[in-house]
This record gives sequence, structure tokens and C-alpha cells, in this order.
Amino acid sequence: MGRWEPNARGRLAQAAFELFADRGFEQTTVADIAIRAGLTERTFFRHFADKREVLFSGQSELREALVSGIASAPESASPLAAVAAALEDVGAFFEEIRDRARQRQAIISANPELRERDLIKLASLASAMAAALRERGVPEPSASLAAEAGIAVFRIAFDHWVTGTGQPDLPSAIRESLDQLQALTGTAG
Amino acid sequence: MGRWEPNARGRLAQAAFELFADRGFEQTTVADIAIRAGLTERTFFRHFADKREVLFSGQSELREALVSGIASAPESASPLAAVAAALEDVGAFFEEIRDRARQRQAIISANPELRERDLIKLASLASAMAAALRERGVPEPSASLAAEAGIAVFRIAFDHWVTGTGQPDLPSAIRESLDQLQALTGTAG
Repeated sequence: MGRWEPNARGRLAQAAFELFADRGFEQTTVADIAIRAGLTERTFFRHFADKREVLFSGQSELREALVSGIASAPESASPLAAVAAALEDVGAFFEEIRDRARQRQAIISANPELRERDLIKLASLASAMAAALRERGVPEPSASLAAEAGIAVFRIAFDHWVTGTGQPDLPSAIRESLDQLQALTGTAG
Repeated sequence: MGRWEPNARGRLAQAAFELFADRGFEQTTVADIAIRAGLTERTFFRHFADKREVLFSGQSELREALVSGIASAPESASPLAAVAAALEDVGAFFEEIRDRARQRQAIISANPELRERDLIKLASLASAMAAALRERGVPEPSASLAAEAGIAVFRIAFDHWVTGTGQPDLPSAIRESLDQLQALTGTAG
């Protein structure tokens, strides 16, 4: 029924990020977001289930990118090499939207409920990656271990990249983090 | 004011586990738990903040055991070896209460909110372990990586142990899981 609003989703997301950063997540309502974007609440709810979803709506694209990155790794790639290739691809994508990623991280860090949501999201990405490895014929528990180790590597590299200077770039930070994990496990004896 | 109730805490926990298993977590009230234990709700609330806490009250002991396990590892132990020693100690403790651990896991698996709580608990244990490693002089990001990798190893070994036949025992399952992680990272190339 509503008239077509050019880039309504992007405008709503932009308005939401600005308000979350200015007032805090709790203090921002969907009505505030719609007003700031020059749109109606009804339009908001055509694009997002609630205000939290503005922060987490990239989740399914991220999952798909990780799963297809693992699926398309060379057949000869070890489980962890397939995981690393997928994470570096995703890292290159985040590199292009660093300002938004940094803004999002600041909003999430300030709110315990959002931090929990973020953890749960990471766990669900690890499960999806483990399933993609099993599809490649990697048996359990290796599939889950490689996926969980990959998520640990990603998380630590991402935190460093997003809260620091952004140097090195995220794909390089992921590779360094993986090298560190290898050094650590090489000395467990 | 209330009269002293011998082992009230243990009786309440036992009653809660039975009811959660029989009726489900959501369908069990604190009143039900108190009645089954032959105690009052007031006594329940002297021991637990809410019914969820019955399932998660071991958290602080677990954190302390992991932290002191890391602190007391030989000075020469590598970060991951210190983590492994702490996890195996904790594993030996769980081995002694396997029936209860199994019951608890079944209750948690059946409830999305409890599964989320369990994930958050694991993340907080990883943070505590990373802090204990930093106390030993391990720099970041190695401390966080070793802690996160350790938690991944523990979780996968624990899931296998608690849902399977219980063979091998948990400390052995943790060692096997760590060996698998080392084999995986050794081939990432």
C-alpha cells in the first residue's frame, strides 16, 4: 500500500545507527528511527522485525558467505585452510565497511544484551561452518573443532582491528591470528 | 528466622533437577520445587536467586578452578599446556558427577534460553582464563587465543562425553580433543 521509498532500508539503518550512537540503544525507539529517516514506523517494520534487527540483519549474508567460502575452497585444502579462506573473504568485505563496523561494535559493546546476542550469533556461525566442513567430508569432531577455532581466530582479529587503528587490514589480522594459534598449539607438548 | 534445614540446598537442587527433567524447565515453578523438596519458597530464595540459578550456580566454582589450575601450572608450561592442565582437572571433577552433568545437559539442550545462557557462561570462562594467562605473563592476543581454543576443545570433548557412552572419561576426551586441534592447525599450511 505505502508508496515506494527509495532506499528505505538503507535510510532506516543509517538513522538507527546515528541514534544508537547519540542516545544509546535502549533510549532509541522505532518511532525515533522512522522520524529521523523521514519514513513511517510501518515502513520500518516492513524492513526490520525490531530495532535490534538493524544491528544483526547482516547475519544471514555473513553465514552464507562463510558457508560458500568453505564449500568453494580447493578440494586439497585442509579443514582449517578452508575455514581460513572463508574468513579472509569475509574479512575483505568488512574492510570495505570499517566505519560502519566500528560504529556497530561501539553500540554493541555498550549493551550487555547486545553483547550476548553477538556471542550467540558467533556460535551459530561456528555451527554453520562445521556443517559446511562436514559437507566436504570432514568428520566430527574435527569439523566442529576447526570451525570453533576459526571463530576464535576471527573474533580476536576482528576485535583488534575494529577497536584499534585498523592496521593491519582485517584479512591480514586474521592470518596473523591464525599463525599465532598455530604457534600456540605447536608448543602445547 | 527459619529453622535450620539439613542440606536444604542439595535437596532443592535435587528436586529442581527432577522436576525440570519430568515437566520441563518452563513448566516448573519455584513453588513446585519447594514442595517437592519439603521446604518453603522462602528457603529456596535463601539459596538461589531464581530457578535458572539452580542450573548455573556452579559457575563461580568452575571459574575459580580453571583460574587456579592455570595459575598453578609449572612455570615452564606453555600457555596452551597450562590451559589443558586446568581443563583436565575440571574434567576429573565432572567425571565424578557425570549423572548430574548429563541430566543438566538434557535440560539445557531442550530450552533455547538456557542454551544461550550456557554459551554466555562459556564465553565468560574463556575471559577468566585469558586473564589468568596474562597474570602468567602471556601477552595478548596469545592469552585470548589459548583460552578460546581451550574452551572450544573443552566444549567439544564435553558434548561428546555427556551425550555419549561416557567413554573415554572426560580428562582423556579433553586430551584427545586437544590432540585433534593440534593435528588440524599443523596442516593449515
